[in-house]
Amino acid sequence: MDKQLRNEVFESAKSWVLEAGERIRENIDAPRQIETKSNPNDLVTEMDQQTEQFFAEKIRSKYPEHFLLGEEGFGDDLTELKGMVWIVDPIDGTMNFVHQKRNFAISIGIYVDGIGEIGLIYNVMEDVLYTAKRGEGAYKNDWKLPELNHERPLHQSILALNTTWMIPENPYIEHTGVQELVKKLRSTRSYGSAALEFAFVAEGVMDGYLTMTLMPWDFAAGAILVKEVGGVVTQADKEPLNLLEKSTVLASRSPIHDEIIDQYVSLKKAKSDR
Amino acid sequence: MDKQLRNEVFESAKSWVLEAGERIRENIDAPRQIETKSNPNDLVTEMDQQTEQFFAEKIRSKYPEHFLLGEEGFGDDLTELKGMVWIVDPIDGTMNFVHQKRNFAISIGIYVDGIGEIGLIYNVMEDVLYTAKRGEGAYKNDWKLPELNHERPLHQSILALNTTWMIPENPYIEHTGVQELVKKLRSTRSYGSAALEFAFVAEGVMDGYLTMTLMPWDFAAGAILVKEVGGVVTQADKEPLNLLEKSTVLASRSPIHDEIIDQYVSLKKAKSDR
Repeated sequence: MDKQLRNEVFESAKSWVLEAGERIRENIDAPRQIETKSNPNDLVTEMDQQTEQFFAEKIRSKYPEHFLLGEEGFGDDLTELKGMVWIVDPIDGTMNFVHQKRNFAISIGIYVDGIGEIGLIYNVMEDVLYTAKRGEGAYKNDWKLPELNHERPLHQSILALNTTWMIPENPYIEHTGVQELVKKLRSTRSYGSAALEFAFVAEGVMDGYLTMTLMPWDFAAGAILVKEVGGVVTQADKEPLNLLEKSTVLASRSPIHDEIIDQYVSLKKAKSDR
Repeated sequence: MDKQLRNEVFESAKSWVLEAGERIRENIDAPRQIETKSNPNDLVTEMDQQTEQFFAEKIRSKYPEHFLLGEEGFGDDLTELKGMVWIVDPIDGTMNFVHQKRNFAISIGIYVDGIGEIGLIYNVMEDVLYTAKRGEGAYKNDWKLPELNHERPLHQSILALNTTWMIPENPYIEHTGVQELVKKLRSTRSYGSAALEFAFVAEGVMDGYLTMTLMPWDFAAGAILVKEVGGVVTQADKEPLNLLEKSTVLASRSPIHDEIIDQYVSLKKAKSDR
């Protein structure tokens, strides 16, 4: 991708993210209409919708030839990743937005013919912006994030992990393997925003993030960030991520990536597909 | 307790906490000697020790008649909670301090004849101070925390919960009950600092915190904060907390407290003691 165009698109995306974030902060205490989507804990608010609409209008006005893949339905109905595609989660961590009024993010990944070129994750209430351009590293605000420390073994590692994957009835992963993984790890954390968990892995404050049900807008930006600091991001069966589908994800420092998958991850779906 | 004396002690504690926090922030990037205590993941640094020593010196100099119960060995060897006792965790969340350089707290609970009078939890890197005096409510910096919302049912609640309690081999709680609890809840979070998890419960951004192995300095301040906003804090078998022993803890909004214990908590120790 042409660097000058990429820089221009990056600056547009950055200014819109900051503007959208400011609007959210200004309205953080407003009374809120909360609806549910796929299940009673899959929350959505009018702020998610308004924010995606804001991005849709900005993108279509300035870049009418670009596409938008979004969580809330203001995007295009894409069956392939041709051309320039903005993959947008207007509020990643809506449950935190509703319950905590913090710990949520705006996430934007920009892909050209399926290759991630630009990633932005904005921790709105902290006013911290994580950014990355392919081949140019990742940043936390103006600080260039260092390459991930690749020395630390798995038993000294901290993984972002949701308790859901330790429930026997979850349809995605054998919970016994996850129990063994937790026994092996130094500890786990759970922050409730996929975009932020990716950002924290990229920052090196956690060593990895394992999860089973992310949508493309949950991981589009995060995958770019983690790769730019030398991390590995794949499906939990080592296959490449598919930007058009719901997916399992393991993002981690490189040396523990295969170890986690080979020794602790047994996917139920993979089994039934065999 | 005399209010004037309590206010004076509160102001001393607050100024020392802020001073200690500033020292930690100034040295957050210094190279660090990390040792382990009870197990390979029970970390301690010279900063934990120096900070407790700082409090020990301050307290003994200004209040020679007070006692100190501390994590790092600079306190008194107490067998009862008579008189005025400062219960201090100089860095709660040492693993976060080491791995993340944030998400840790200074925690101080001040008890008079076993009754919690003053609680302070300082989120050092965020520069956010949670405080409480018995009967006068709790504060986040200068903002008085509202009474906890008692409407929300368990299935819409978020609990702070460590994945450790979902491992079958953990010696404290039947993991199957915890699995059922996770299925019931809206979600769980894990931040890696007991003091901060109490503070977040007091703030209402989580509905409760269930854990199995806290030391008195982990919960001394947090218990005061949560009670001051109308929450309930007990051992996980509903017994009162013992400020001189390692303890299980459930801190939560009042209406879900009994429900969690009655329906989901089956303690292994209690069983073998019967």
